[in-house]
Amino acid sequence: DIRDAVLAFFQRRQQAGGPLAGVKVLITAGPTHEPIDPVRYLANRSSGKQGYAIAQACADLGAQVTLVSGPVALRPPAGVTFIACESACEMRDHAMAALPVDVAICAAAVADWRPDHVAGQKIKKQDRTSVPPPLVLVPNPDILAELSEPSPMRPRLVIGFAAETQDVHEHAQAKWRRKGCDWIVANDVSPATGHMGGDTNQVQVITRDGVEAWPEMDKTALAGELARRVAAWLARHPRRDNVQNGGTHG
Amino acid sequence: DIRDAVLAFFQRRQQAGGPLAGVKVLITAGPTHEPIDPVRYLANRSSGKQGYAIAQACADLGAQVTLVSGPVALRPPAGVTFIACESACEMRDHAMAALPVDVAICAAAVADWRPDHVAGQKIKKQDRTSVPPPLVLVPNPDILAELSEPSPMRPRLVIGFAAETQDVHEHAQAKWRRKGCDWIVANDVSPATGHMGGDTNQVQVITRDGVEAWPEMDKTALAGELARRVAAWLARHPRRDNVQNGGTHG
Repeated sequence: DIRDAVLAFFQRRQQAGGPLAGVKVLITAGPTHEPIDPVRYLANRSSGKQGYAIAQACADLGAQVTLVSGPVALRPPAGVTFIACESACEMRDHAMAALPVDVAICAAAVADWRPDHVAGQKIKKQDRTSVPPPLVLVPNPDILAELSEPSPMRPRLVIGFAAETQDVHEHAQAKWRRKGCDWIVANDVSPATGHMGGDTNQVQVITRDGVEAWPEMDKTALAGELARRVAAWLARHPRRDNVQNGGTHG
Repeated sequence: DIRDAVLAFFQRRQQAGGPLAGVKVLITAGPTHEPIDPVRYLANRSSGKQGYAIAQACADLGAQVTLVSGPVALRPPAGVTFIACESACEMRDHAMAALPVDVAICAAAVADWRPDHVAGQKIKKQDRTSVPPPLVLVPNPDILAELSEPSPMRPRLVIGFAAETQDVHEHAQAKWRRKGCDWIVANDVSPATGHMGGDTNQVQVITRDGVEAWPEMDKTALAGELARRVAAWLARHPRRDNVQNGGTHG
């Protein structure tokens, strides 16, 4: 609509000289829904707010953003290439199709597992006490690990999110080592924190340099800070093919 | 807000002489979410649109409506007592607490089953190929059947919905016999129809008098028609304690 067009116009003007101008960023956001039958599915409580805020923040700094999103109740940010999907397998395919990018930020809460079989028709309850067969689950593609694998298509910077409800630091450290990504943004999503679905977040950022605990802040502020960190990292780590233009690795 | 207050004011004026004036109606709507752990849950694709439209239509005809709703993205209708819930067990408790009512309309897509155990912490994936234990499911309370049971608290008219993806008529007939409700409103929610989550619906209404196939119409129109049928039925079946005032059973 008109509001979007106006916003996008001014955004493009702003972006031209932004610190992420010319940088391609892939962002995944939201939950995935894993179908059980035509009406039922497995889901998780991700609202997509953090990922959408990051997409907006990167676009505001001039990046060319592709946002691959599971089902959420949010409006896609203006000026962003938006791709809606539902299941982890679909999200993986859309994420891989978006390559090459400079930066990948995996903020989606991708379902670890999906039902091994999707029933073609609604599974019927036989009577009031009948019990269905247990739901057998199989592992989903690991999008963060796939993006992190050494390859000519690997983004220069791959950032994962870790949503934990206990031992946040330990689980996030283990995830960082296991996935092969560059940074992990870990947050506590215990119901008592209100972070899952809420407007604020509190994270620890794990990089090669160690762990940094950020104060609690709203998701928009956190997104802005993360986008600035990404821009600073890219400035310190220019593309290999730009090294002759004066860049240094460090 | 102000809009709601103004709408509710005019609605109350309108209602005073409506055909459902003084009639208490309980409506369930939306899906239920059945928790697996603090972040994961089982869900279904009900949008709540049909149930919310029925709540609005009954209120417009003067009824005192209690709407018990699972998680949806809709705004509760003005002038309705609104109770939000998540799981089938919560929905059952809220529905039973709303009794006595004259009419119960169970439009919610209540999950037939829930995980037998809710993990207190997020279930961890061990490595990329590890498979979790199968999800063991147990039957949920059958709210429609409970409301339909003969009891002094039984609503005079209990209406259930049947969402089917095949053999709609046969499954709905079986449900009508099994549940003990008075009417079943059956619809085809195959993905190809677009009814699940969409703005239109096409139903068959099963009563003691037989089956009536309604044409495809938008959910608001369907809700209005259903509310008028309810009013007509109540006019033909006055409360027992009103029989001396001239009512007849028939």
